[in-house]
Amino acid sequence: MSSKKYVYLFSEGKADMKPLLGGKGANLAEMTGIGLPVPPGLTITTEACNQYFAEGQNFPAGMEQQLKEQLAEVEENAGKEFGNAKDPLLVSVRSGSVISMPGMMDTILNLGLNDQTVEAVAEISGDRRFALDCYRRFIQMFSDVVLGVEHYHFEQVLDKYKEKQGVEFDYQLTPESLYAIIDDYKKLVSRKAGLQFPQEAMEQLLMAVRAVFDSWHNQRAIVYRKINKIPDELGTAVNVQSMVFGNMGDNCGTGVAFTRNPSTGEKKLYGEYLINAQGEDVVAGIRTPQPIISMQKDLSTVYKQFVETCELLEKHYRDMQDIEFTIERGTLYMLQTRTGKRTASAAVKIAVDMVDEGLINKEEALLRVDPDQLDQLLHRRVKPDAVLNIIAKGLPASPGAASGKVVFDADEAEELNKAGIKVLLVRTETTPDDIHGIVAAEGILTSRGGMTSHAAVVARGMGKPCVCGCEGIRIDAAAGRFTTKDGVVVNDGDLISIDGGAGKVIQGDVPMIDPELSDEFQTLLEWSDDVRTLGIRANADNPEDAEKAREFGAAGIGLCRTEHMFMAQDRLPIVQEMILADSIAARKKALDKLLPMQQGDFYGILKAMQGYPVTIRLLDPPLHEFLPNAEELAVEITALKLKGKVQEAKEKDVLLSQVRALSEFNPMLGHRGCRLGITFPEVYAMQARAIFQAVVQLTQEGYDVKPEVEIPLVGHINELSRLRKLVIETGEQVKEESGVDFEYDVGTMIELPRACATAGEIAKEADFFSFGTNDLTQTTFGFSRDDAEGKFLHQYVEEKILADNPFIVLDRQGVGALMQMAVGQARTTKPDLLIGICGEHGGEPSSIEFCHQVGLDFVSCSPFRVPIARLAAAQAAVNK
Amino acid sequence: MSSKKYVYLFSEGKADMKPLLGGKGANLAEMTGIGLPVPPGLTITTEACNQYFAEGQNFPAGMEQQLKEQLAEVEENAGKEFGNAKDPLLVSVRSGSVISMPGMMDTILNLGLNDQTVEAVAEISGDRRFALDCYRRFIQMFSDVVLGVEHYHFEQVLDKYKEKQGVEFDYQLTPESLYAIIDDYKKLVSRKAGLQFPQEAMEQLLMAVRAVFDSWHNQRAIVYRKINKIPDELGTAVNVQSMVFGNMGDNCGTGVAFTRNPSTGEKKLYGEYLINAQGEDVVAGIRTPQPIISMQKDLSTVYKQFVETCELLEKHYRDMQDIEFTIERGTLYMLQTRTGKRTASAAVKIAVDMVDEGLINKEEALLRVDPDQLDQLLHRRVKPDAVLNIIAKGLPASPGAASGKVVFDADEAEELNKAGIKVLLVRTETTPDDIHGIVAAEGILTSRGGMTSHAAVVARGMGKPCVCGCEGIRIDAAAGRFTTKDGVVVNDGDLISIDGGAGKVIQGDVPMIDPELSDEFQTLLEWSDDVRTLGIRANADNPEDAEKAREFGAAGIGLCRTEHMFMAQDRLPIVQEMILADSIAARKKALDKLLPMQQGDFYGILKAMQGYPVTIRLLDPPLHEFLPNAEELAVEITALKLKGKVQEAKEKDVLLSQVRALSEFNPMLGHRGCRLGITFPEVYAMQARAIFQAVVQLTQEGYDVKPEVEIPLVGHINELSRLRKLVIETGEQVKEESGVDFEYDVGTMIELPRACATAGEIAKEADFFSFGTNDLTQTTFGFSRDDAEGKFLHQYVEEKILADNPFIVLDRQGVGALMQMAVGQARTTKPDLLIGICGEHGGEPSSIEFCHQVGLDFVSCSPFRVPIARLAAAQAAVNK
Repeated sequence: MSSKKYVYLFSEGKADMKPLLGGKGANLAEMTGIGLPVPPGLTITTEACNQYFAEGQNFPAGMEQQLKEQLAEVEENAGKEFGNAKDPLLVSVRSGSVISMPGMMDTILNLGLNDQTVEAVAEISGDRRFALDCYRRFIQMFSDVVLGVEHYHFEQVLDKYKEKQGVEFDYQLTPESLYAIIDDYKKLVSRKAGLQFPQEAMEQLLMAVRAVFDSWHNQRAIVYRKINKIPDELGTAVNVQSMVFGNMGDNCGTGVAFTRNPSTGEKKLYGEYLINAQGEDVVAGIRTPQPIISMQKDLSTVYKQFVETCELLEKHYRDMQDIEFTIERGTLYMLQTRTGKRTASAAVKIAVDMVDEGLINKEEALLRVDPDQLDQLLHRRVKPDAVLNIIAKGLPASPGAASGKVVFDADEAEELNKAGIKVLLVRTETTPDDIHGIVAAEGILTSRGGMTSHAAVVARGMGKPCVCGCEGIRIDAAAGRFTTKDGVVVNDGDLISIDGGAGKVIQGDVPMIDPELSDEFQTLLEWSDDVRTLGIRANADNPEDAEKAREFGAAGIGLCRTEHMFMAQDRLPIVQEMILADSIAARKKALDKLLPMQQGDFYGILKAMQGYPVTIRLLDPPLHEFLPNAEELAVEITALKLKGKVQEAKEKDVLLSQVRALSEFNPMLGHRGCRLGITFPEVYAMQARAIFQAVVQLTQEGYDVKPEVEIPLVGHINELSRLRKLVIETGEQVKEESGVDFEYDVGTMIELPRACATAGEIAKEADFFSFGTNDLTQTTFGFSRDDAEGKFLHQYVEEKILADNPFIVLDRQGVGALMQMAVGQARTTKPDLLIGICGEHGGEPSSIEFCHQVGLDFVSCSPFRVPIARLAAAQAAVNK
Repeated sequence: MSSKKYVYLFSEGKADMKPLLGGKGANLAEMTGIGLPVPPGLTITTEACNQYFAEGQNFPAGMEQQLKEQLAEVEENAGKEFGNAKDPLLVSVRSGSVISMPGMMDTILNLGLNDQTVEAVAEISGDRRFALDCYRRFIQMFSDVVLGVEHYHFEQVLDKYKEKQGVEFDYQLTPESLYAIIDDYKKLVSRKAGLQFPQEAMEQLLMAVRAVFDSWHNQRAIVYRKINKIPDELGTAVNVQSMVFGNMGDNCGTGVAFTRNPSTGEKKLYGEYLINAQGEDVVAGIRTPQPIISMQKDLSTVYKQFVETCELLEKHYRDMQDIEFTIERGTLYMLQTRTGKRTASAAVKIAVDMVDEGLINKEEALLRVDPDQLDQLLHRRVKPDAVLNIIAKGLPASPGAASGKVVFDADEAEELNKAGIKVLLVRTETTPDDIHGIVAAEGILTSRGGMTSHAAVVARGMGKPCVCGCEGIRIDAAAGRFTTKDGVVVNDGDLISIDGGAGKVIQGDVPMIDPELSDEFQTLLEWSDDVRTLGIRANADNPEDAEKAREFGAAGIGLCRTEHMFMAQDRLPIVQEMILADSIAARKKALDKLLPMQQGDFYGILKAMQGYPVTIRLLDPPLHEFLPNAEELAVEITALKLKGKVQEAKEKDVLLSQVRALSEFNPMLGHRGCRLGITFPEVYAMQARAIFQAVVQLTQEGYDVKPEVEIPLVGHINELSRLRKLVIETGEQVKEESGVDFEYDVGTMIELPRACATAGEIAKEADFFSFGTNDLTQTTFGFSRDDAEGKFLHQYVEEKILADNPFIVLDRQGVGALMQMAVGQARTTKPDLLIGICGEHGGEPSSIEFCHQVGLDFVSCSPFRVPIARLAAAQAAVNK
């Protein structure tokens, strides 16, 4: 009766047998298969594990027999015999599931040692202390993992003997002490576990295998699987491998190496090794490892073999490898190889180099670089190895690092900046009044507000570092200082730094490195452009950002917000005049003043983007955002009254009642977007006129401009059709007045669930759609981003209620389903409708992949994320 | 060559030929067909109109010929000849489209009059003044409508002659004056229109027909169609009908009648008439009409015929008719019949009576009553004919009328109420602190807040009249008065009234009528119950409301909100203690105090609803709703500081910073619903325990209770599965502690677009779904109800951007589409899943129809709307 095959020799497996052999087992088999010197061994399959549980924690029929037979093969291969008292084979036992699971069973090394074999090892190695120490460690490890006798019991014994002998380190213990310790250990096991420490090698092995199987269902593993949604049915494999030793003399050694420089990508072996040492000696830091190149001198034959092996591995795996090896008495053993981690710049260089070397093709190269990593290359950042005095953490609102003197006031920031002093603007939150201060500052730090707060949005647009919602600091602007949770006081003028990509606030200056835009980087992006089908645009509100975006490869502006243009210091009074106007005539008067300013804005941005489309969104935020804060006003009035300044108080009272009339319970869901255009058509008419007059001006100057007028927050076709008409009427007027003909499109943001549900209707009145996934995520989830991120979203992500923050990674299941519905309906109405995305997801790789999959035409993101989007779009196309 | 049939005699048409003959034409044809004495006439079809425009405003081939031929039939029928100088046929010409369109062409009467025929009419009628006045009016009407000579020109002429003759009324003009006027009229036409007033009858007719056709495309009609979405292709028909005259002597007359009493429904002819008069004499009010019964004496033969005709019409149309008639020289002519408008109580009585009479069946009877009208019968209301001094208008937040003395303070309201004085509570807005005042008051009036503001929700729950968001009044509570826009000052203690169904604020007392719950009303509701498939539940938060709901026929509670229970004066301090707790232990201490109170709440409501399911929603609103207002606190602190009360200010400062920490930018989208349950599981655990302990208590007392625990605001299955587990664990604990076994369900509100998009997933963890369409409408549209209704929604509805306020009538296209998606997905997962609706739409007939259509199991509404929902659900079932 032949049973199922439960045990595979390394030489019988392959890399693609991962589900059966686990990740580690398959990997060892693969290396064995391509002829590398891997210490021989075998893998007990995941099926055996599953069957073990199916049969009530009994080994499946035939497994034990197979294990013994295959172990005989390993013995033959290793030239040693398991349990043999003269030349014993020692093995390691490791678990190995399909998906790597930290928190499962620990490794057991040196299994096969017992009172006899330890003497044989002492003989063979010529180092009794070494042999005894191996045995001691084995007893300790085995007892802990298999018998459940906890570590600290053994440590107590060890400490007792170290004290007795008057030494500090384990390796200083004499063989005599070690004998005594081993004796005490065995007594401990007998007392705690109620059995004699097993002396029979096969008994040890079977107990270890059972322990690995059992560990699949220990508490840690169950919780880990639950959190990470790993199915219980996968099971774990067990790897049994011959031990090799790098610490048996000067023809031994151990080391780690990368096949290329993981920091720069340079094609040159990179790593270090130690003669006559074990892996743990390297970690212990007692001896200083040598650079790998010195092996050439010390062990030239082995070095040559090692170099060849590395080359072979790179060719085989077609990627840079991270290798662990041991040399036992002049023989090289490969213990592990895996794809090596690398910096962003190394990833780019290696990918491009490997194409040049013919090792991979361009499409593969594109997949080798994590688009998110590119962010590192596009901003000044904190030197990776710098020691930082982090005093607080907030939200990573805008990437990059900055240092400067703390200022609490925008005017002061501007003044100091003019005097050539670098400043960091620190505010509870910023408002439109602070714009000039933000412009002047190196970076922004706020104690309130989320990733879409005013400070965050403005800073990202400008590519300035920003840390937001840093609730751990208490700002007392009046006193000119802020205090951290730990009581650190930072005064006006003190030097601090922020890391906007990590949300860190750092005391003092920090060393920084500049963006690295290598030739390879450019090459990779060009390849991306060849492959991708998604268009890439940028979100930009001013000519500088537009130029930056263009430089980074954006082929258009997908979102030009017009409200930021209203926030400039010289305009705000006019904007307020417009808002507080008590008649249409008065409002038009204010709008007439704004018209030439807006025209200038659009002139600049359209010119910067000539030849490419520019989507200009008409006014979106609620009007009260441009007004003073009601509460501050109320407090001011109370103070004025109590001070007897009745007349002043009265005037402010009028303003307060106007502010109150415009204030809202839920501004996010209030009187904004196209609703403003419906109730105050003169505002949208002014904006449309400003756009068209700029177009006329540019057309007359010979520029080719492509304006797209975008109506925000449409939920019903009637909103769009009415405002589209208003825009077109304005366009016709301008054409008639100027005698210049020009082209333009009128479209809408799709950012409400109702717009998705009725997209087929809305498409009838639209020349284009652009998904505003920030707002769409807010309304689909019913999450106010500003509130959610501070109050509960963090916990949601931490406790895996949500896999990701949906404001960062597009929620495919919910928001994505609505988008898909919208695209389907819209393309039924108009098969060629231009559809893009301009929410922040437009610069996030996973979201970009989804956009590609549902058939969008373009993504639009902040200028600094354009390269990331180009690569991510290419990857989506390759992966499809 | 035979052309298409463009002209139909009334005797050739039928009611179902409306698309071809228009509404009026088809109706006249129907009456003719059943043998009623309709003055003969013909209809030119809508097709002729469309063809007229297709051929560049030329009559289609054959139409003119057909018109002449058919007119000959009319002449024969009428026994008079068109244009005949001895016994001329006069006709009226009217437009008549398929859908009634006010703002289209005016009627032309007496067409066929000219200088000869007017003399014939004078002879035949024996009344020259009458004949001449008809001619004068005809010239004026024809010239205005057909020739575009405006009315006021003719009025000037008329005034001139009245002055000359020294009389006040038209009918006082002598024949001599009329001859002169006619002469002047003709000169006027010649001067203004550049042609002689047409004397030839057929020429007059063709010109009139052309004018009717042309009116289809006049500006008024185009705008009207656009606004009302009436297709341009419908076209209008033209009705040409013989004139009859009720003012040719004492055997003539005219009148209007209802076949039953439209006010009470009593089966008895109801109406009035005038001997020797025309319709316009009744309107002019110069002579007092007689009750219809007096016709029996005056014109007994005609009366008998009229009674028979009325009976015939009722039998034919199978509904109460509103009839216009004329008697010309002893001959009865029916000029119009249409279904008569009636009061709610008449509608109910007539419907039930007609079933008893065998005229209609029960299902038809159900369709005869407008469910919304029933609201009138369920509340005390303002007497319909009362003269009201309306001083302001607000939102109709809770129906019914109330009068009382104005109080601005809840404590005062309670005090006065105890003293037996009826009060109306007037507040800027109400808060949980005001609950005792609301209980004590007859009704509530607020100057801020929408239909879902605290005052509105609480008042509706209690069935108390409420007018909200009455922005036209300025309240100065400190001074004890409010002032309206028009400057009316109302002082503390003044008597005012409100009409909560119409949003009216009325000075002084008003006469009111009590609810009318007739036997017929009960019968109709019982029939509804036989027919409907939708279950009806009520939204109720306390035993009194639950009992009311049960009385009205609710079979369960679909939504019991638990937050209102937190707002009672004696609990609020404990709730605040719970919220502001700085540790879980402190929070649990406060929760322990709340537990017995909540248990008492649930005990009461479950007991009141024994035998029926009660859905209890766990805490939903954001916690800061239970705290003082930040701005008020800030003002208070500033004042305290300036007054030197440093210590007090400091204490308040601590509270303020706690309030601030809990405050949100968009509370509607913030930290509320199940998000509270996730972050503060101890709160939900306390509520679940309170429910289960109440269940144990009731079970031990022998009651059969069916609790359904509802988790609000779920957007992701993980939220529900975690909280479901918490509830079930609590349930198991209570079972174990008490030794009592009990059943319960755990389900969720579906009130977020994401919940709809992933309903198939969510259904896995739910025993039931209940659509929260208030919030679902807010998130689907991105409308904050509180903001939208005050800021732009009014304009949206007024200008037809939205057909209805989506918070009142469920938006089928958007919100409905998401609901349908959710039902489809959920029923795929669990075919038998119980699905209901508990938003306010659950009590609105059109929304109920939609709920029936998409297959919901129940609707839940406020207790006072339960009868409405029963009828609406029955209608939905009948109409399906």
